[in-house]
Amino acid sequence: MAPHVVIIGGGFGGLTAARELSRRPLRVTLVDRRNHHLFQPLLYQVATAALSPAEIATPLRHILSARRNVTVFLAEVERVDLAARKVILTDGELGYDAVIVAAGASHSYFGHDEWEFAAPGLKSLEDALEIRRRVLLAYEAAERCEDATERQALLRFVVIGGGPTGVELAGALAEISRKTVAADFRMIDPTQAQILLLEAGPRVLPSFPEALSRKAEAQLRRLGVEVRTGAPVTNVSPDAVWVGGEQIRSRAIVWAAGVAASPLGRSLGVKLDRAGRVMVEADLSLPGYPEAFVIGDLAAFVHQGGQPLPGLAPVAIQQGRAAAQNVWRRLTGRPTERFSYRDKGSIATIGRASAVAVIRGLHLSGFVAWLAWLLVHIFFLIGFRNRFVVLFEWAWAYTTYQRGARLITGRPGFPIRARRD
Amino acid sequence: MAPHVVIIGGGFGGLTAARELSRRPLRVTLVDRRNHHLFQPLLYQVATAALSPAEIATPLRHILSARRNVTVFLAEVERVDLAARKVILTDGELGYDAVIVAAGASHSYFGHDEWEFAAPGLKSLEDALEIRRRVLLAYEAAERCEDATERQALLRFVVIGGGPTGVELAGALAEISRKTVAADFRMIDPTQAQILLLEAGPRVLPSFPEALSRKAEAQLRRLGVEVRTGAPVTNVSPDAVWVGGEQIRSRAIVWAAGVAASPLGRSLGVKLDRAGRVMVEADLSLPGYPEAFVIGDLAAFVHQGGQPLPGLAPVAIQQGRAAAQNVWRRLTGRPTERFSYRDKGSIATIGRASAVAVIRGLHLSGFVAWLAWLLVHIFFLIGFRNRFVVLFEWAWAYTTYQRGARLITGRPGFPIRARRD
Repeated sequence: MAPHVVIIGGGFGGLTAARELSRRPLRVTLVDRRNHHLFQPLLYQVATAALSPAEIATPLRHILSARRNVTVFLAEVERVDLAARKVILTDGELGYDAVIVAAGASHSYFGHDEWEFAAPGLKSLEDALEIRRRVLLAYEAAERCEDATERQALLRFVVIGGGPTGVELAGALAEISRKTVAADFRMIDPTQAQILLLEAGPRVLPSFPEALSRKAEAQLRRLGVEVRTGAPVTNVSPDAVWVGGEQIRSRAIVWAAGVAASPLGRSLGVKLDRAGRVMVEADLSLPGYPEAFVIGDLAAFVHQGGQPLPGLAPVAIQQGRAAAQNVWRRLTGRPTERFSYRDKGSIATIGRASAVAVIRGLHLSGFVAWLAWLLVHIFFLIGFRNRFVVLFEWAWAYTTYQRGARLITGRPGFPIRARRD
Repeated sequence: MAPHVVIIGGGFGGLTAARELSRRPLRVTLVDRRNHHLFQPLLYQVATAALSPAEIATPLRHILSARRNVTVFLAEVERVDLAARKVILTDGELGYDAVIVAAGASHSYFGHDEWEFAAPGLKSLEDALEIRRRVLLAYEAAERCEDATERQALLRFVVIGGGPTGVELAGALAEISRKTVAADFRMIDPTQAQILLLEAGPRVLPSFPEALSRKAEAQLRRLGVEVRTGAPVTNVSPDAVWVGGEQIRSRAIVWAAGVAASPLGRSLGVKLDRAGRVMVEADLSLPGYPEAFVIGDLAAFVHQGGQPLPGLAPVAIQQGRAAAQNVWRRLTGRPTERFSYRDKGSIATIGRASAVAVIRGLHLSGFVAWLAWLLVHIFFLIGFRNRFVVLFEWAWAYTTYQRGARLITGRPGFPIRARRD
C-alpha cells in the first residue's frame, strides 16, 4: 500500500499541504473537527453582519473532491503519539508514515480564561455569530431601555486589542453605528454609540511601521472610533471592562488581544516557546522525529536568528507547501530542505476605502491600500461562487451602507424592561 | 397623541399590516421576538444547504426604516389582555387602541411533543440550521462508520409528512445524495442513500387536485425519493421511526406533518377551532372586541361556509391588508368591511425543474410549474439584494449541482468510532 500521510487541520497550512501531497502516489488523510475550511481573514465581516458564514467557508471535502487519494475525516484529535506514529482521535486513531500538524491557534486571555464568556474572541463561525448577536442585541435593548445610564452602556462597544483584527472590528462597528443602522431606530440615535478600541501597547497595529500605525489611528478616529493606547485591561465582566481602576460599562465586548497556540502542541512532548508554539527544525520537522512536521500558527519557526514568524495566512501557506515537499523527499529517501519565508508584505483594513499596507517595502494607506486589500482577499477566497457573491455583497454595502446579514440568531437575548402606551 | 396600533408578529400578515397602517396618522408598534422577517417558503432551502439564512431573512427595522411612525420592538409577547387593551410582554407591556395579532403557527406533534428533539420541524432559522447539521453530519458519520447496519441507518433520511414542505425537503435531500455530495466521499457511495417520505394519508400534496398529487409522486420517485403513503408514524426516537410495528432506522429525521397555531391564541380567552386557531368574525375582528384583529396562520377564517382558509402566505398578506384597513375604518368611525379571499392558486416545488401548480384553475407540472414557482418566489422575496443573490445561487446550483451552504455549525455531532492505518 502507498505510504499514509496524516494532516491535522484544514486551515491555510493543512489544506495547502493536502493539495500538494495529492499529486504524489500517497494516501493522504486530512483530519479536522470542522467540515469546512474557514477564510479567517474575513471572519470579522461575519461578526459585523457584512457577510454570511457560507460566503467565507467551504466544505473541505468539496475542495478536495477531485483528489481521489485524499480522504477527509471529520474528527477531533486528542493527541499525537510520535513514538508509535499514531494520531489519537477522541473516537478512534490513525496510523501514519508521516504527519503534518497544522492545528492552528485560539485566543489567549493571558491566564484569565474566565473572561472568555464576557468578551468572546473571534476564531470560529460560532464566535462570529455570537459577537454579531451581542452587537445587534445591544442596539435592540437600547431602543427599549428607559434608564439613561444603562442605555449609554448598551450603546458602548469595546474592542480589546489593537492588532489587525481589533482594528478591523472597531472600524466595522463604527460604520454600523454611523451608517448601517443610523435611521432604523426611533427612541435612540445609533450614531451616538461609542466605539472604544483599547490597546495595552503604545500604538495600534504594532507589527506595522510606526508611521502607518499613526495613519491607521487617524483613519479610525475619522470613522468615529475612540482609540485608547497604553490602556491595558485589568478585568472583564459581562457588563464592564476595567482599565486600571477605571470601569467602562458595556454589554458588547470583543476580545482581539491574544493568541494561544493549539493545546495539541503540548501533547507532542517536545520543546515549546512561551506562546505554546512548537519549536521546529529548519525543515519544519520535529527534533528527533523527522517524519513529523508542524506548520502555521502552531509552529515557532525562527527566521535567520530573528523573531518567530507571525501567525499569518501567507506563512501557513508557504509552510504547508514546504512541509509537503519535505514529506515527499523523506518518503523517497532524499534529504529534506530548509524552509525559507518570502515576505510579500502585510495589509490591514480599517473601514470603507481605508487601510494600511506594506507591500515590497512600499508603505501604502487610504484608498490604494484598501483596493490592494480587497483584491488580495478576493483572490485568496476559495471558489468562484464565493468570490462572486462576496464581491457583490461588498459592492452593495459600499453603495448602500447596508449589511446583508443583520440577523440575531441563537439563544434569546438579555432581558429588558420597557413600557409604551 | 395619535392612536396607537400594536401589531404582534412580523411575518407576512403583520408586516403587510404595518406597511399599510404606516400611511395613516397613527403610531404603530410592531412586536416580534425575532429581529427579522423570515421568508418561510424558502426555509427548506436553508435546511438543505442551498441558501444562507441572511438570504431569506431581513431585519424588520430595516424594512420599516423609512416609515417613521412605525416602531419595531424586539420582545416576547406573553399574552393579550383584551379587556384592558394591553399587550403583556415578558418584560414590559404595551397599551393599544387597536391590536392585530399575527403570531403565526409552529409544529404540532399531535400530542407527542417528546418527538420534537428526535424529529425537528422547520419553522425558524435555528430549526433549518439544526436539520442541515443533522443531514450533513449523517454523511460524515457514515464515511467513518465500520458497521454496515449502522452505516445504512446513517444513510437513510426520513421526512414525515407529504405536504408541500415535506415534498420540497425530500426532493432536495435526494438531490444532495444523487448529485451534490456524490463525488465527495471515499468510503461510502452517497448515491446509495435512501430518502424516505412518509405520508399518513392516501397521497402526497393532499391540498392539490388528485392528478397533480400523482404527478408529484412520480416526479419524486424519479429524483430517487421512496414515497410511502398510508404510512402513519406511530413512534419516533433519535435513531428510528416506527410505522405501525415496523421500525425504520435513521439518524436524520425531519418533521413536516403538523402545524399548530401559536399558543398566544389560547391566551385571548375566545373561541378556538380544533387546531387551536382563533375563530374570527367576517371582518377579521374578535367577537366582542371590535378593536382586536387576528390574521394569518393563527386565524380560522371560514370562507363562505366552507373550510377555514389554509395557512399560506397569500392568505396572511391579504388578511394583513384587510385588517389594517378595518383598523383605520374603525378609528375613523366608519363600519368595517368583510374580508374576502382571492385565491390566486397554489404551487409546490419538488426539485430541479420539477413542480406542480394550480394557477387560475389551470393545472401545471414539470418545468413550466417550476419556472412559475421560481418567478413567484423571487418576486415576493424582500429587497433587491436578496433577490439578486438568491437568483445567482439558484443559477449556480442549477448548473453545478452544488449547494453553497454546506456547513456543519453549532454543537458537536454524534460520536463515531473509527480506525484507519
